[in-house]
Formats: sequence, C-alpha cells, structure tokens
Amino acid sequence: MESMNHSIIRYILCRVIELTGVLLLLPVLVSVFYREKQGFVFLFVALCCLLAGNIGKRMKPKSTVFYAREGFVTVSLSWIVISMIGALPFFLTGEISSYVDALFETVSGLTTTGGTILNDVETLSYTTQFWRCFTHWIGGMGVLVLIMAILPLSGSYNMHLMRAESPGPSVGKLVPKVRTTAMILYGIYIVITCSAIIALCLSGLPLYESATLTFSTVGTGGFGVLNSSIADYSTVTQSIFTVFMILCGVNFNLYYLFLIRKPKEVFKSEELRLYLGVLFVSAVLITLNIRGDFKNLYAAFHHALFQVASIMTTTGFTTVDFGKWPEFSKTILFLLMLLGACAGSTGGGFKVSRLLIAVKSIRNELSYVVHPRSIKKVHMDGRTVPETVIKSTQVYVMTYVAVYLFSVLALAIDRFDFATDFTAVAANLNNIGPCLGQIGPTGNYAGYSVFSKFVLMFDMLTGRLELFPMLILFSLKTWKR
Amino acid sequence: MESMNHSIIRYILCRVIELTGVLLLLPVLVSVFYREKQGFVFLFVALCCLLAGNIGKRMKPKSTVFYAREGFVTVSLSWIVISMIGALPFFLTGEISSYVDALFETVSGLTTTGGTILNDVETLSYTTQFWRCFTHWIGGMGVLVLIMAILPLSGSYNMHLMRAESPGPSVGKLVPKVRTTAMILYGIYIVITCSAIIALCLSGLPLYESATLTFSTVGTGGFGVLNSSIADYSTVTQSIFTVFMILCGVNFNLYYLFLIRKPKEVFKSEELRLYLGVLFVSAVLITLNIRGDFKNLYAAFHHALFQVASIMTTTGFTTVDFGKWPEFSKTILFLLMLLGACAGSTGGGFKVSRLLIAVKSIRNELSYVVHPRSIKKVHMDGRTVPETVIKSTQVYVMTYVAVYLFSVLALAIDRFDFATDFTAVAANLNNIGPCLGQIGPTGNYAGYSVFSKFVLMFDMLTGRLELFPMLILFSLKTWKR
Repeated sequence: MESMNHSIIRYILCRVIELTGVLLLLPVLVSVFYREKQGFVFLFVALCCLLAGNIGKRMKPKSTVFYAREGFVTVSLSWIVISMIGALPFFLTGEISSYVDALFETVSGLTTTGGTILNDVETLSYTTQFWRCFTHWIGGMGVLVLIMAILPLSGSYNMHLMRAESPGPSVGKLVPKVRTTAMILYGIYIVITCSAIIALCLSGLPLYESATLTFSTVGTGGFGVLNSSIADYSTVTQSIFTVFMILCGVNFNLYYLFLIRKPKEVFKSEELRLYLGVLFVSAVLITLNIRGDFKNLYAAFHHALFQVASIMTTTGFTTVDFGKWPEFSKTILFLLMLLGACAGSTGGGFKVSRLLIAVKSIRNELSYVVHPRSIKKVHMDGRTVPETVIKSTQVYVMTYVAVYLFSVLALAIDRFDFATDFTAVAANLNNIGPCLGQIGPTGNYAGYSVFSKFVLMFDMLTGRLELFPMLILFSLKTWKR
Repeated sequence: MESMNHSIIRYILCRVIELTGVLLLLPVLVSVFYREKQGFVFLFVALCCLLAGNIGKRMKPKSTVFYAREGFVTVSLSWIVISMIGALPFFLTGEISSYVDALFETVSGLTTTGGTILNDVETLSYTTQFWRCFTHWIGGMGVLVLIMAILPLSGSYNMHLMRAESPGPSVGKLVPKVRTTAMILYGIYIVITCSAIIALCLSGLPLYESATLTFSTVGTGGFGVLNSSIADYSTVTQSIFTVFMILCGVNFNLYYLFLIRKPKEVFKSEELRLYLGVLFVSAVLITLNIRGDFKNLYAAFHHALFQVASIMTTTGFTTVDFGKWPEFSKTILFLLMLLGACAGSTGGGFKVSRLLIAVKSIRNELSYVVHPRSIKKVHMDGRTVPETVIKSTQVYVMTYVAVYLFSVLALAIDRFDFATDFTAVAANLNNIGPCLGQIGPTGNYAGYSVFSKFVLMFDMLTGRLELFPMLILFSLKTWKR
C-alpha cells in the first residue's frame, strides 16, 4: 500500500488558508463602514493567512497522486484548520474570552449548526457578528467546493474532494467538469442569497440585519443577531425566513435542472416530494397539538411551520420557546432533527434521500425474507439505486448510531440530565443548534465542560462531513505506512 | 405467487393451544399444594385449551407446503394466541381487573420483558404468582422450540420455525436434525434451571421462591415475588442471581460445544469474550462512579455487577434504585439496555454478535472507502460471515431504529416526558422491563393509556421475535393473494 501523499494535502491546505484570509477581508469592510476597531484584528489575521498561505503554496507538491483517502483527509483537515483560524478574531478581539469557546462558536458556525456558547449576542460588535453569521454562509455550500469553483485546480482530485465534502448518499456531477459543477452550485447559492437579502430589506429590515440573517438562513445555520432569535420580527419577515429555509433544504441540483428547463425531472424527484410532504404533515400535526396556545389557528400554523422548517432544514431559528410545547410536538421535532433536509442542500441531518433508500431496502429485505427466490432492486426517481449506495447507506446508519451513542456516553460525564445530553448530541451531530431539555431552544452550550465541548465539536464536524471523513482522519489505519 | 397455506398455520396453532393447556396444569398443581381456589380457574382454562386444541388438530392440513413466510406468520400468531390465553387466568381470577392489563402482564412475561402493571405483586395468590413467573420460563427458550422438542412434527417446516423464533443474526443447527437440536437446547435449559433452584434453596430461600425466581432468572425475565424485587435478599442470594443471569445471557450453543468436549471452540468465541468484557468493564466503571453511595468498594461492585448483569441480560431485577445513580452510570445502563445479551441465549436486545458484525462491517466500509480496490470479508470466530448475514444485520439496525422512533412518537401522545418514553421503548423493545425516567426501576407501566400499552406490547413481541416476524405479520403484502 502506498503511503499518504502528504505534500499535496499540505498544498491544498495552504490554498484553504489563503482563501480564509480573503474571506476575512469581508468583515474588515464592515468594520470600516461602522468605524469599529475590531477591524484591525480581522485585518491582522487575514494578512497572516494570506502570507502563510502564499509562502506555503510556493512549495509545489512532489507528487499529484490523489486518491479517496487523500480526499477525506484533506477535507477533514481543511475544516479543522479554517475553524482554528476563524476562531482567532473572536478570541483576539476579546469578545469571546476563552479560545475553546471561540473555537466552539466557529465550528458551530462553519458546520451551520448554530448552537452558541454566548449568553448575549447583542453585545458583539457589528464586525464580529458579521463574521459569526458569515461562517454559516461559507460552511453551507462548503469550503472545498468554493476552492474548486474559484481556483483552477487541475488533476484527478476534484471529484474526491467533492465527494468527501458534499452531503448525501451519492454525488452527481451536474456537468462533466467538477469545476463547472462547483461554479453552478455557488452561482445558484449566490442568487438565492441575494434574493433573500432583497426580500428581507423589502419587509423592512435594515441591510445589515438582512445580510447577516440571510447568511444564517441560506447556510441553514441559525445564528441570530438578537438574543430572541427571530421572535421579535414581524409575521411577514418570519414568513420570508420560513420560505428561504425551505428553499435551502432542497437539493441544489434540482434548481439547476429547473434552470435548464427540465422541470419534469424536478417534480419527479421522490426526495423533494417526501421532503415537502413530511414538512407539511408535521406542521399540521403540531398545529393541531398546540392550537390552544395561540390566538387563532393561523398563528399556530405560522409558528408550527416556522419551527418545523427551522428544525428540518437544521437551521435552528426559533420564534417561540418550543421547549414548552406538548411532548407530542417536541417528539415530532426531535424526529425531524434526526431526519434533516435533502441531500445536496445546505442542510444537515440524516437526509431525506437516505430515509427513502433505508425504507425501500427494509421493504426489500422483508420481501426477500418472505420470498427468498425473488430478488428485487431498489428504485428511486425511476432509476435503480446501485448496491454500493445501498450498502453505504446501511453502514451510514450503523456508524451514525455508534457515534451517537458514544457521544451520549461521553457527555454523561458532565452535569446535565439524559434528555439534555441526548438531544444535545442530536442537535450537534445533525447541525441544528438549539436542543431540548435543560439546554432548550433559548438556552446555550456555555454550561458544558471543555471536554464535552470538544465532543460536541467533533460531532458537529462529523455530522457536517457525513461521518466518514472525520472517522478516517482519526483512524490509525489511515496513517499507518 | 402462491397464496398463504392457511391450513398448516391453523394446525400448528391448535398444537400450540393444546400445549398451553398442558402448561396451565402446572399452576393447578401449585394450587392443590397451597389449597387455593384460583386453581379451578386455571384448570378450567387448561381444559378448554386441551379440548379446543384437540378438536382443531383433527382437521389435518390440506397441504404441507411450508415456506419462510408461513414460518414467520405461524410464530407471530402463536405468540399472540398463547399471550391471549395466558392472560385469561389473571383476568378470570380477578387478580388483574382489566383484560388489557392482564394481556400486558402476560406478553411481558412470555417475552421475558418483566415490566409490570401491578402496584403490589405480594397480594397475588401463590398459584397466580407461579404462573406469572412461569411465563418467563416458557418464553425464555421459545414456544415453538418447545413444540419441536416434544412433538414429532415432520416435514420441512422445522427450520423455518426455528429460524423465525430463535434470537440472533444466524441460526446454527447443533445437530443435523432440528428436533434433536430443540431437545438439546431444552435439556441444557432444564439443567440450568434445576441448578439454580438448588443453589437458591441452599442459600436459604424456600422452595416456592427459589422456583419462581429461578424461572424469572433463567428466562431473563425479571418478575419478582416481592415488591422490592431482589433488594431484600441476602448478598449471597443476590450473587447467585448474578451468576445465573450471566450464565443465561450466554449462547446456549456454547454449552453444547462444552459438553461434547470442544472447550477450545467455546473460548475462541468472540461473542462470549466481548460479552464478558463489556459486562465487567461496565461494572467496574459504574463501581467507580457510585462508590461514594456504598459503605465499601466491594458493596459498590456487588450492586454494580448485579445491575449490569440484570440489564445486559435483559432480566430487569434490581437490588437498588439505579434511577438515583449518577447520569454517567445511568447512561451506561441505557446503552447496555440497547445492546443486550448473546445470540442464542434467553436474553433480548440487539445482541452482542450483531454488534460485532456491525463494528466489523463499519471498519470494512471505512477501509473500502479509503482503498476502493481492496475488498475484505468480515470474519468471526475464524470463519467468514456470509454477505447475507451482514446485509440482514444492517437492515436489522435500520428497522430497529425505525420501530424505535415510531414507538417513541406513538407514546408521546401519552402524558409522560421524553426521557420516560424513550427509555420505556428501550426497556420493552429489548425485553428488559424496568426503565429510567418517571417510570423508574421501582415504578411500573400502569400509568400508560390503553393505546400506549398496546404499543408497548407490540414492541415486546417485536423485540422478542427480532423484528421481522411481527412486521411480516402486519404487512399487507403478506396477505395479498
């Protein structure tokens, strides 16, 4: 077996560091506008990144051998490195006093989780708050996808990087070239982002709030700029959030299909239909369950749909404290936490298409047990799902359960109760953010110990990168020569 | 596709009813000894069964066609029928006033769950208490296995029945003939039962208590004869329970291998080593966590080991209220609840061998992702695990998660909190009995609604029969012509 190609991993990491430097210049612009001195810190970190990245990338890789293994390791390390750099401004401006907390906040931002350790987000400077929300936008579509979209990386490794970073059981290239695919995806992402900012501005929000909250929405992250999350905005504004959360939970490939005038394919998508079906059925069930708490059925449906969309797309915005809702509604939300949005969206979770494959393969197995001689294939959208995808979905479920249970055990050492730990892992592994139990939708993760915070950070990254990259990074076998 | 062979299913069900009649004569003997009038009720039900079964079995089946489908349906229906009959004496003697509660108690008994709806078990008559514990013994090794051991059922259907009723990912016949295998298993079971009764008598327990509690122990059920479960017995007696619980969590095939002088094969068993390893590591971890609550380290270890053995073998006896233990210990116990004992034992749960297969196939998949060209097989005990077993294990995990989450959602309609519902499903689906949360180790299921009780009964049967038989019984496709 060949040993790991370290030089190419180092090379791509340097480009990631360079890109982080460029991205850090955006909050600098914000600080210029608001005349905040925090901008100097961001500028300093940005320049260091540009310098370090620039020096590093001059050492060209000795070999361009790049397999799936290198792809997984590169993606995991990139996310860890960008988190560590992104946490620096929080810490150096003194706005988050502990580096571990700053790291937690950055990982939570980049993985579009949206869980926070801050008790009061309203005291943050405009610059820092902008960066905090902007991490959601960066993480939503992916760091490596961005690199592929803007840098002319040639060679065979594009697909390996894309596969390792994109959410969902299988990765379809939209067009033959990976770079063009990445550009199309970011193009759609930017169009949706701009539409959301304009819609929010029209509903009466100032530009700054429109922009920051849009980053949190389209990245399905959930960081707000007010301590009350979205509760204090008007019903119209809240509805705009609902619409854009739902839009960003859809597989972005479908927008491309729609654009190139194949709307039939879009409506044929079983994942989309199930996603919208689950969304509305859950909202209706919760509406019926909570109707007594609101002045009319419409208000109940409005808040039910908002919360369902927020949880299912793993955004994590809240308009009401659903921790006080009846057990039935909370259980539906908990199940939606596990399920998550569509593959290829900015949302996290188990993904609707995996549920489809899982249910279909259970049905297949039951029918195989009953009629051992009839062998059936699993079909989706009229096509046969390859055996390898089914197998990896099944292994995904098992791995997911294993990571989940180990995380719960690790958190049990801390001082919170079972329900809190259990939903905290769900909220972080699925990149949702707020959880139930003692850390409710209105609470935060500051109370956890440093050890527990690292467990939750691991869960967030593992969840965002869909289990395998992080596990492969931490597997001894990967590094054995 | 051929239609279901109803006549053979009817024929076997009649034999099951007949057997139930014979088994009901045992509590009649107890009632003669204690001169209790409840015996008449048992005698009446027994005679009805014998009569009905005898008439029914005279109508010989029209066809002996018997496939896996018939096997699954027969096993599910047999368990439902014997539960419905077994509940009658509880109800007719008036000792349990509602038939649904009596049914819950019987299903809990037969599936060796051990969860109860009774607030006070000490007021039951000797006869009824005997029957209650005896259901554990019947369910421990299986009803159909017993029928195969004592009745000369010829034909191809033995293996289908055995496969549908036996716990574990794969069924190995000990000897070529299924009937002999069933007899060997019951032989070992009876020897262990007698040893336990003798050991408990020697430790100072009266014969009646020794016998009833032995049924609960070797069936890994958990019904006690005192409200305090096992807490009021001496340390020596408690340790005897610990030993026999652990013994009955071992794959019974290993005892056979040991008897025919293949001890090497026994110690080579990876499942046995992992089972004992998890058992002792968990006990040690809990001991360290709870040592402050006990007068010395030995007492802490004694109670930790008892509780770990009780939960892991899915017995459900308690010597202390572990609901008051620290969160870390409770989480370990919760994870052991999910795991359960060895395949081919009387214990329930996910089974240690399934964990082994799951972990090994995760490791394989990770290594496949990293090195797509290297294809490895999963090995256990030096042999290759067939792909079909791996696949069915993976589907088992997915199905288990699906049944689990749907049950939690169904229970959420009731009045208990999330942690209670979540652990109640764990306790019933894995056939353990006591759970955490509002229904603690000392509580019971009486507070649940009738709907919730039926959900839990479904879970108990689904768990005992390992998902597929019950799902196939309730699947429309099975009954479609």
